[in-house]
Amino acid sequence: MRHLLSPLDLSVDELARLLDLARDISKDPSKYGHVCDGKKIATLFYEPSTRTRLSFEAAMINLGGQVLGFSEASSSSASKGESVADTIRVISCYADICAMRHPKEGAPMVASEYSHIPIINAGDGGHQHPTQTLTDLMTIRELRGSLDNFTIGLCGDLKFGRTVHSLISSLVRYKNVKFVLISPKELRIPDYIRDDVLKANNCDFVEVENLEQAMPELDILYMTRVQRERFFSEDEYLRMKDFYILDEDKMALGKPDMYVLHPLPRVNEISVDVDNDDRAAYFKQVQFGVYVRMALILTLLGLDTVVNPSLAHVLDSLDA
Amino acid sequence: MRHLLSPLDLSVDELARLLDLARDISKDPSKYGHVCDGKKIATLFYEPSTRTRLSFEAAMINLGGQVLGFSEASSSSASKGESVADTIRVISCYADICAMRHPKEGAPMVASEYSHIPIINAGDGGHQHPTQTLTDLMTIRELRGSLDNFTIGLCGDLKFGRTVHSLISSLVRYKNVKFVLISPKELRIPDYIRDDVLKANNCDFVEVENLEQAMPELDILYMTRVQRERFFSEDEYLRMKDFYILDEDKMALGKPDMYVLHPLPRVNEISVDVDNDDRAAYFKQVQFGVYVRMALILTLLGLDTVVNPSLAHVLDSLDA
Amino acid sequence: MRHLLSPLDLSVDELARLLDLARDISKDPSKYGHVCDGKKIATLFYEPSTRTRLSFEAAMINLGGQVLGFSEASSSSASKGESVADTIRVISCYADICAMRHPKEGAPMVASEYSHIPIINAGDGGHQHPTQTLTDLMTIRELRGSLDNFTIGLCGDLKFGRTVHSLISSLVRYKNVKFVLISPKELRIPDYIRDDVLKANNCDFVEVENLEQAMPELDILYMTRVQRERFFSEDEYLRMKDFYILDEDKMALGKPDMYVLHPLPRVNEISVDVDNDDRAAYFKQVQFGVYVRMALILTLLGLDTVVNPSLAHVLDSLDA
Repeated sequence: MRHLLSPLDLSVDELARLLDLARDISKDPSKYGHVCDGKKIATLFYEPSTRTRLSFEAAMINLGGQVLGFSEASSSSASKGESVADTIRVISCYADICAMRHPKEGAPMVASEYSHIPIINAGDGGHQHPTQTLTDLMTIRELRGSLDNFTIGLCGDLKFGRTVHSLISSLVRYKNVKFVLISPKELRIPDYIRDDVLKANNCDFVEVENLEQAMPELDILYMTRVQRERFFSEDEYLRMKDFYILDEDKMALGKPDMYVLHPLPRVNEISVDVDNDDRAAYFKQVQFGVYVRMALILTLLGLDTVVNPSLAHVLDSLDA
Repeated sequence: MRHLLSPLDLSVDELARLLDLARDISKDPSKYGHVCDGKKIATLFYEPSTRTRLSFEAAMINLGGQVLGFSEASSSSASKGESVADTIRVISCYADICAMRHPKEGAPMVASEYSHIPIINAGDGGHQHPTQTLTDLMTIRELRGSLDNFTIGLCGDLKFGRTVHSLISSLVRYKNVKFVLISPKELRIPDYIRDDVLKANNCDFVEVENLEQAMPELDILYMTRVQRERFFSEDEYLRMKDFYILDEDKMALGKPDMYVLHPLPRVNEISVDVDNDDRAAYFKQVQFGVYVRMALILTLLGLDTVVNPSLAHVLDSLDA
Repeated sequence: MRHLLSPLDLSVDELARLLDLARDISKDPSKYGHVCDGKKIATLFYEPSTRTRLSFEAAMINLGGQVLGFSEASSSSASKGESVADTIRVISCYADICAMRHPKEGAPMVASEYSHIPIINAGDGGHQHPTQTLTDLMTIRELRGSLDNFTIGLCGDLKFGRTVHSLISSLVRYKNVKFVLISPKELRIPDYIRDDVLKANNCDFVEVENLEQAMPELDILYMTRVQRERFFSEDEYLRMKDFYILDEDKMALGKPDMYVLHPLPRVNEISVDVDNDDRAAYFKQVQFGVYVRMALILTLLGLDTVVNPSLAHVLDSLDA
């Protein structure tokens, strides 16, 4: 039984094969339209996340499979006091694979210990959201051709943003990736990322406050939202907020082959006038997210080589 | 890219072809059971409307397609501040067509401007609900054989009822339709319907207060609900409420080939003893609603001539 | 038109044939994977019950069919004042069969009177929950080989627990079933079960307070939850609560071929250390629940002999 609880559950080699499969799917999704005929995914969303839930559902339907589940806890047995362990043993009787979103860190891991079917962590509190990271990695790889040799700017709330932490932790495994960490002082990356991840891997990184100054050197700009309430004072917020809003003026400072990513939803941190810039890749990213989830479902179900046997089996050593 | 935002997006000719297709479907729905194999509809319901949502879902499933979506805004990304424009660009990566219900007027139109897939307005505030109008038109056409040459009574709240306004606006395009507008004075049709639609099209219409007196001349009676709180005073409500409740006594005054329609849900404006009258057509109307939505989905996806090539392409000039 | 409103709607013979079909399904579910191609079940859940809803949905999908519906009343037309009678006439236009959960006793029966499609009562208030009873009966039959000649202990809240009442009412129809009713005094079975069901059928039964003492003679132990607020006093609760918590110490007193059932969700009335005991059958029960619902759907749709003609038609005389 294999699960995906953290993006680091996959080795670099396993990930390469998963992303190869996702690329093969992206070229002709219809080729994979019946691989999961008769299979079911359970989407257990203990807190709402429409985008993520529908991405999993679209992925499974694209593969010929079916969907059941719930979109918020009030509709679930959790409100009657059932444990996650019991719920997943029940769901194991209903479905072939499960995507679980839960407000509590570690809930999907607990589920995986009792489950008879593969569990995909679809976000557990501020902890992990591995399919977002897989999506980010596929997007960078498809746009640039490789996950090696580039400079990525990560901009916004680097302190609380779990997608940023996961992405950094994944990218340090590739060659010659330089990190430009762009945030207000109070929202810098936490020590355990700076010391235990970046420094421990001898990565090249800088911490800066100003997006504008960083723009010219970036190959990828990964934007996230800065929430007003995260600033120490209103004055500080007013002084700095424009630093972290991407608009066409700032885009003009970027390379012609730089790409902008965002995990979405965005509120106002990317101005809508950027949407028409060819370098805006955040909606393409959504499409890649469906393909990478299709690849993941196939892999965890052991169906990854059914269509294309030349894609060798992907997740041999993935630890449950 | 074609959308359906208002019932008037369809010309009389286009509508005739759509209703021909719906009729063909109604004769043998199973013939169309696989036309949408591999297709998905997204049902984005920012406010609950079970009947409408399930009608779209049944329609898509009847065509061999699949469904994803949400049934109320609390489960959606809207609660995180995402714009409709962003949401629909995301959904465009997940589905082939979208039915959107939204409490704000114009939201589906905004969506259509950013969407890569056809948008069907499934009701936007008090504004439009075009598939209800298509349902009403199909029902009248199937029951009477034609949309020309008949007298329709529209009874109840004619001031706020959007289904009534849309139906009138559609019917003025047919020949020799006479309108009997039956309502309390304070719930008469608004000026922009009376002047800009009925008078502007030289239609024959009368405004009356009493359903009983109007009954004998009607070919179609379209009932809607009169809400107590819409009356100026409790006295007025008590004096008039029975005028707008259809029962078997009033039915006895109607023609033997008159039909009663209602957009549902009804509360008490049609007495349940009318349900067994052969002229009660409001549940047949629900069934026609599924067929006309099947025809609409096929048409917007360009699949309307797949099964029956003799039904010429329907919506050539439909404006997105 | 046939419905399932109460477990007693099925005669002993009909039930035997239904359980034979469920057993045949359990041996090779894939054989039944396309029997309901093109069919739809509507799951109308006016109150949430994830386990039951998903069991029906999994059952229908396993048969090749599709699902539509709602998981709580706030998403339904009920909130606009529509009657169950009207709702089911609408749903009859959308689906081929309906599973209804409703907080009011008798709602599914009312629905059945107006429906054009089979209605399955998926729980109506404290009244009936017949598919739970079918699940319980299948579990006992599969584990023991027969529904005759055994001793069943029913433990916990026997006063308010509808699953217990339904199960007793069904089991009295079999030969030589002995009942051990284990509960605090204030939560004993009601008189109408003791007198009109057990005594009226000349059943062998005893009422006891202590699970431990009853254990050695049981072939089946059916556990249910005892809610704190159901006790007369806190003192009484503290004195008695451990009597009704099943743990490995109590399991040690049971026969080696005794089985433990529970309708789930459990809270703390079965200690988790019991889960690994081979005699713990409550998660197997969940799987049987899917198979028996598959058999029920096939039966009510008249498709029960499509795959295996030797299973004679099941529900000939079932009364709508």
